[in-house]
Amino acid sequence: MRGMQIRLKARPQGLPATSDFEVANQAPPDPGPGDVLVQTLYISVDPALRPRMNAVSDYAGALAIGETIPASAIGIVLRSRDPQFAPGDHVFGFLGWQSFAALPASGLRPIDPARAPLPKWLSLLGLSSFTAYIGITELGRPQPGETVVISAASGGTGAMAGQFARIAGARAVGIAGGPDKCRHAVEVLGFDACIDHRAPDFEAQLDAACPNGIDVDYENVGGRILAAVYQRMNIAGRIIICGLASEYSNDGWAPGPSLWPAVYKSLRIEGFRASRYFDRVPGFIDQALAWADEGRLTHSEQIHDGLENAPAAFIDMLQGRHLGKAMVRL
Amino acid sequence: MRGMQIRLKARPQGLPATSDFEVANQAPPDPGPGDVLVQTLYISVDPALRPRMNAVSDYAGALAIGETIPASAIGIVLRSRDPQFAPGDHVFGFLGWQSFAALPASGLRPIDPARAPLPKWLSLLGLSSFTAYIGITELGRPQPGETVVISAASGGTGAMAGQFARIAGARAVGIAGGPDKCRHAVEVLGFDACIDHRAPDFEAQLDAACPNGIDVDYENVGGRILAAVYQRMNIAGRIIICGLASEYSNDGWAPGPSLWPAVYKSLRIEGFRASRYFDRVPGFIDQALAWADEGRLTHSEQIHDGLENAPAAFIDMLQGRHLGKAMVRL
Repeated sequence: MRGMQIRLKARPQGLPATSDFEVANQAPPDPGPGDVLVQTLYISVDPALRPRMNAVSDYAGALAIGETIPASAIGIVLRSRDPQFAPGDHVFGFLGWQSFAALPASGLRPIDPARAPLPKWLSLLGLSSFTAYIGITELGRPQPGETVVISAASGGTGAMAGQFARIAGARAVGIAGGPDKCRHAVEVLGFDACIDHRAPDFEAQLDAACPNGIDVDYENVGGRILAAVYQRMNIAGRIIICGLASEYSNDGWAPGPSLWPAVYKSLRIEGFRASRYFDRVPGFIDQALAWADEGRLTHSEQIHDGLENAPAAFIDMLQGRHLGKAMVRL
Repeated sequence: MRGMQIRLKARPQGLPATSDFEVANQAPPDPGPGDVLVQTLYISVDPALRPRMNAVSDYAGALAIGETIPASAIGIVLRSRDPQFAPGDHVFGFLGWQSFAALPASGLRPIDPARAPLPKWLSLLGLSSFTAYIGITELGRPQPGETVVISAASGGTGAMAGQFARIAGARAVGIAGGPDKCRHAVEVLGFDACIDHRAPDFEAQLDAACPNGIDVDYENVGGRILAAVYQRMNIAGRIIICGLASEYSNDGWAPGPSLWPAVYKSLRIEGFRASRYFDRVPGFIDQALAWADEGRLTHSEQIHDGLENAPAAFIDMLQGRHLGKAMVRL
């Protein structure tokens, strides 16, 4: 039984190239005592991986050259040296971009394919969705009738953030790149409006879609999109920063907006990582499945086939070519 | 009975000059039905006035040329057309830089000089202190053992913020301009440490005073002081922005720090204005007086005499020449 690993070969300059990755053969490792050997079935492809590829990175640590690319994933147990898991069990864990992983049972969570098809455990029920759930329900806390703006509105986390805002009774206004994504956000995901940030009259459209200003910003992008939203924040508004994708391939980080409006408008600007809230994942999954059953929550997947294509899928995503949650099926 | 008003004569360029103000004679106005005529005794001098002097200002609106300078103040009732107040009562209200004010009874709060001397109602019990109380206890919420950094540590609001942090069981580290202010913060106010931001080794001293990093920043200054603190924030830290005094005399607002650390460190950056919390002032006053009685809370006043000297007092304050709460006695 043979597989492969995708490793970081070189630090990308700007947008990554496939030549920044290397493919290596992999044999299934032997699980130690208490470990579980898992075969990877689906890997998540996430934009936040990009800053970790830089030499100086504080975001969960920089990757080393030669390191296997980390990722959350779905897999199936091949062999278990822990009584909690048995061969054939489906699991969620940080398996990485590789065919096999041997890791402690404590790093795995069982999943039940009878409750939802496997890809849904990385989209609707995965970390991107959980991140949106925390960002909206725990941090942004939109009230009924408030206006929530979501950038990267058709992406893995933005698509969910808008739906959670709607479930909270708020108005969800998406921002996305191109008419297809905007149509998807409104027609499939149920956003109240979605604006193409490439449109020449982007800011006028944002004004029209937010006649009462903006109460909550769920920010995935940063840069000029955040700047436009920031100007329109209401008193006591909340800017919840999930990511700053517009900067991930830049050399260094741009300054943020002036903090003076935060003073005179009593704004809260809050960055977060969902890992602080992982104890709430099981409750989230029950809630998300219930909302999906009621027809209030959905998600799309952008599935690429073949682990060797993961780098290309990642690069496509960074260029905004995806719609829905990006993943690779092995 | 004659008095005076101080009005905005010209919009300051950079640091205000006394020639930006004009002094006008004032006769006591006639109170309308429901109004109270008050003679001003002490006016508060506050840095946040400066941005309101600019032509374009969103901070509670720009002042008009010729407008009387607004300020919270302590006064004594001369005549009342409302049953809640009688001549001789002492009151707190937004009387402005003028000898007399006639305003609705709803805009006044009775104060009891038997509970604390009059200047204390603008220092220990005034809005600068209340602002610090909200910023620390409601927004920053330091936990026992955490490290709180306070800029402008010997000033009207900073002095109180450090003491509220200490009362919460946290370590209070001040930042101030010059050794006298730093000594005052430690020896009189009880800060655990206070660092002179003019020292050439300011950042090394900040490291030494915060060996476990910084959990809460109570920010009054901004600029390079905020930048130094921002680098040292711990995971889940809170940056509570009361003011950005280093920018008040600049032309335009500087960009803020990159928001990327806010994401990877889960930081909350929160600006605020105490006016959102005014319903909590009475409870605050009882609490502050109780803490003062226990010897846990004190404040110094920098009292200038003569309303005509208010512009000079204001300019001195913007240059950092004060220690304690600045006010003018009429």
